Amino acid sequence: MRLRHKPWAKEKIEGHPQYVISNPEEHKGNWNEEIFKNDGPIHIEVGTGKGQFIVGMAKANPHINYIGIELQESVIVSALDKLIEEALPNVKLLHTNGEDLRDFFAKNEIGQVYLNFSDPWPKKRHEKRRLTYKSFLKVYQNILVKHGEIHFKTDNRGLFEYSLMSFSKYGLLLKYVSLDLHNSEYEDNIMTEYEEKFSAKGHPIYRCEVKY
Amino acid sequence: MRLRHKPWAKEKIEGHPQYVISNPEEHKGNWNEEIFKNDGPIHIEVGTGKGQFIVGMAKANPHINYIGIELQESVIVSALDKLIEEALPNVKLLHTNGEDLRDFFAKNEIGQVYLNFSDPWPKKRHEKRRLTYKSFLKVYQNILVKHGEIHFKTDNRGLFEYSLMSFSKYGLLLKYVSLDLHNSEYEDNIMTEYEEKFSAKGHPIYRCEVKY
Repeated sequence: MRLRHKPWAKEKIEGHPQYVISNPEEHKGNWNEEIFKNDGPIHIEVGTGKGQFIVGMAKANPHINYIGIELQESVIVSALDKLIEEALPNVKLLHTNGEDLRDFFAKNEIGQVYLNFSDPWPKKRHEKRRLTYKSFLKVYQNILVKHGEIHFKTDNRGLFEYSLMSFSKYGLLLKYVSLDLHNSEYEDNIMTEYEEKFSAKGHPIYRCEVKY
Repeated sequence: MRLRHKPWAKEKIEGHPQYVISNPEEHKGNWNEEIFKNDGPIHIEVGTGKGQFIVGMAKANPHINYIGIELQESVIVSALDKLIEEALPNVKLLHTNGEDLRDFFAKNEIGQVYLNFSDPWPKKRHEKRRLTYKSFLKVYQNILVKHGEIHFKTDNRGLFEYSLMSFSKYGLLLKYVSLDLHNSEYEDNIMTEYEEKFSAKGHPIYRCEVKY
């Protein structure tokens, strides 16, 4: 994704604490009560980008609470714009990375994890940075409900192959897999910005659901 | 595969008992001693078709014994032709299907199972006929060595997706997966007749290795 420097982004993010939660560690274990004010499940997207997916999901599933996590300031600000426009009560954003999720969420606090078009980190020496590397799978396991799921999609063949093996080695159950999502029977797909652009070129999108 | 009636096939098969083993149940537990006369591992291919794969493997790996299993008389006869021509000591054929493998092989007798371009049986009501259905996975487990492997390739997306899920549900470890074998780093590929024809059209070949 092309990153454009947006000097006003920091100020905008800080100006909307009702959408971009500035002190997530303080809500650990209490997101339902303190932030969402309901008992619904909480789903997180690690690497939420410009937010089209999570906003689409939140509109389609008003009974589910969503938290989008994104490190890039110049990108999360586009997700914030969508939240401001839609005024959705069931989406929040965290301006951070996916490594410290245990600092923000308690055991069993998260119902589902979404990974969409994560950075493939194709070099073997960067394997540990891939969001489907075993250390991340352990982090997700630590915050997910029992038998919680990861829903993962990507256009990157190498990352998908790697992830299937990583999931299997970790002992996760492969519940669902599509090797060409846009030509499959799956009807509930909500596209990310990247997915829209990329799939228009005719390349397949890979998707799977795995369960702890 | 187009099947042509070959009235002379039956006679030809029966005329070469040194290649097409006519009474496999009598060798159960004793294939190494009685048939191959060595202690090498025995790999089987279920649905060996016209034999190009197994003959290629046998030439590349003279220390391994191969058994090709094929039900179609008009097809196995082409595999037999290759054996006659090559006079390879480490390949045998069985003219039968893959359901009764426990009648022919003892526990731990088989080192590896190959499934290549198996019939996809795309209709849900035919799921039980797919060679990666759980009942077949149990049969393979019963004749394979501990931690034995299945090596599977196909051009059929639906069958590959199904098989990945079936393997996972059965508890097998996904050791290796390629979603585009001919554009991967895998160098030891030996193509089947079908694979040569199909991949020339530019469609991807899917391949995986799973371990019990």
